Amino acid sequence: MKPSNTEPEFSADDHAFMQEALRLAESATRRASPNPGVGCVLVRDGRIIGRGATRPAGDDHAEIQALKDCAARGESPRGATVYVTLEPCSHHGRTPPCAAALIREGVTRVVAAMVDPYPEVAGRGLAMLEGAGIDIRVGLMADEARRVHRGFLSRVSRQRPWVTLKAAATLDGKTALLNGKSQWITGPEARLDVQRLRAASDAILTGSGTVLADNPRLTVRDVQVEHQPLRVVLDGRLVTSPDREIYRGGGTLLASCADDGQLSRWREAGCETLVLPRANGHADLGALLAHLAQRGINHLMVEAGAGLNGALLRAGLVDDIVLYLAPALAGDAARGLFAWPALEDLADKTPLTVRDVRMVGRDIRLIVRPG
Amino acid sequence: MKPSNTEPEFSADDHAFMQEALRLAESATRRASPNPGVGCVLVRDGRIIGRGATRPAGDDHAEIQALKDCAARGESPRGATVYVTLEPCSHHGRTPPCAAALIREGVTRVVAAMVDPYPEVAGRGLAMLEGAGIDIRVGLMADEARRVHRGFLSRVSRQRPWVTLKAAATLDGKTALLNGKSQWITGPEARLDVQRLRAASDAILTGSGTVLADNPRLTVRDVQVEHQPLRVVLDGRLVTSPDREIYRGGGTLLASCADDGQLSRWREAGCETLVLPRANGHADLGALLAHLAQRGINHLMVEAGAGLNGALLRAGLVDDIVLYLAPALAGDAARGLFAWPALEDLADKTPLTVRDVRMVGRDIRLIVRPG
Repeated sequence: MKPSNTEPEFSADDHAFMQEALRLAESATRRASPNPGVGCVLVRDGRIIGRGATRPAGDDHAEIQALKDCAARGESPRGATVYVTLEPCSHHGRTPPCAAALIREGVTRVVAAMVDPYPEVAGRGLAMLEGAGIDIRVGLMADEARRVHRGFLSRVSRQRPWVTLKAAATLDGKTALLNGKSQWITGPEARLDVQRLRAASDAILTGSGTVLADNPRLTVRDVQVEHQPLRVVLDGRLVTSPDREIYRGGGTLLASCADDGQLSRWREAGCETLVLPRANGHADLGALLAHLAQRGINHLMVEAGAGLNGALLRAGLVDDIVLYLAPALAGDAARGLFAWPALEDLADKTPLTVRDVRMVGRDIRLIVRPG
Repeated sequence: MKPSNTEPEFSADDHAFMQEALRLAESATRRASPNPGVGCVLVRDGRIIGRGATRPAGDDHAEIQALKDCAARGESPRGATVYVTLEPCSHHGRTPPCAAALIREGVTRVVAAMVDPYPEVAGRGLAMLEGAGIDIRVGLMADEARRVHRGFLSRVSRQRPWVTLKAAATLDGKTALLNGKSQWITGPEARLDVQRLRAASDAILTGSGTVLADNPRLTVRDVQVEHQPLRVVLDGRLVTSPDREIYRGGGTLLASCADDGQLSRWREAGCETLVLPRANGHADLGALLAHLAQRGINHLMVEAGAGLNGALLRAGLVDDIVLYLAPALAGDAARGLFAWPALEDLADKTPLTVRDVRMVGRDIRLIVRPG
């Protein structure tokens, strides 16, 4: 007797193979950017005969990598089932369509976690496979796939990157002293965790206040990366100067509301510059994020002070907050996390959902999501 | 072959029986106050033949309860092993000495988690048992016993109660708005957890600011208690008035630095009053805690605002902080947790040790210890 099940069409084996495809996807996300980092597993007779994950843009997608892995093992994909975290592509981009390759190699079943919302695919990959008589199943572990592909999905569906705001504070919510002095609040394990967050991001955004107060480099250190994330400084009124650390070594975009002529000093220092419109007297944050999405940034990390943090939150532009709480108190006479207009009522506080709580070394790490 | 072990003299069974005694102790702590809430288990032939926990002051100690339980089961304690979380007493207080009862009943081995530092016992109970030829072992699960008996131990050894400070804040460390408005920050599960904390306390301390702003009752609700904790208001300059909720219904102590004559209005309202000396221009907090210890308060809970919280912390008078963090942000324009002089350097922040992190409903609960 078959037990009733909320997902009756997918077996435990189906879940296990998709889990493996999701694991491969997770590992490929950063290097594949701006493409989605897809994972793919080929299975025949209950056995994995090929694994693949998306290579850097212009190189193989996950399905092609899995077919190559299959061939390298001396296996044949004929009659195999394909588990893939995103619908196979149907269009000629920088690479030929994966759906065509799967048809040619004779696979008989394709299980996709989700449809690709990218306008040039958007169901056409599945239709192409279906048209070739391949058995198509969609929706296995879709929530997990949406999580893994959240950066790509955000860029395609919302025309802005997935925004992860990192903050560190004492248990009473203090980031720095009122005299402006700040220093490492958290321990070495949390600081390494921040490096991993940076390494998983396509770009890192900070504000002029942080550049002036801390003079950070915001590069990835102590974690292997193929290329450094783009560094983005929002300095609407040009209060920083081109000799700050973050403008050195290239790979930095200065976003401001200044006249283009004022920006030549930064360009001479090797920076890219971007002129943003104003919105309510401040640089238009939505325009900045739209620009970053247009240039292929899927994952944006924010490492800024209370001013930019608060502005992004108020504008509804923050998806995840990674908050490191150091087990210490600084007292009320210190700087807080989020600049915010005075509330009339505590019922108006910004609600968050806790997604993860864990210790990282001696510090507490929370992942919370607005709303 | 016997495996090497850091506690070679105690077996796994010894640990299991002491664990049961500690469980009994934990359940007895509040009702036994000001006595230590001790747990006791009688074991013969590897089987529990009696359980006991300290009754309210003047009634049976744990050992006598365990002997009575043994008799009620029709068992004989002759030849039994006694597991007890604190050294059996040797003196005639309001009850006869437990050590004598154990000798009379013919037990042959006593395993005590720790020596009782109370001056009238302090090893004499063990010596009495030893002198009767009983095999004595001390130190099994001593750390756990010190934790369970921490209130009694603090009162006896430090002449002050164990102080647990409860605070609730948003994730950015805000407790109320600058306009003075406050309201429940946390969810119903966290508020019930606070009621349990109150129920486990002998007294609850608050400050005049909280009495003025929130007009709380600070009674135990929704949790069964045999008697309400003593309510203590610290109002050094007598800025509150006797018609506030907390002064109603008796069971409240007003501590101030006022002239005794000014306090008659509170006494007429049914309050006890205490005049404290000043230290550095403020009510002497150490003197307040010493007074509470003298009247048998083992566990003091603090539910106050940033001012009293900060003063207690700076004075080194806080043992545990139970901090409920609501998943929400209030922004910088709101009131913080701890009033504190401006630090010169973040290295001077007050270090804490995280002892427990868990979700309570939708809120995060931290238990942290200064130092």
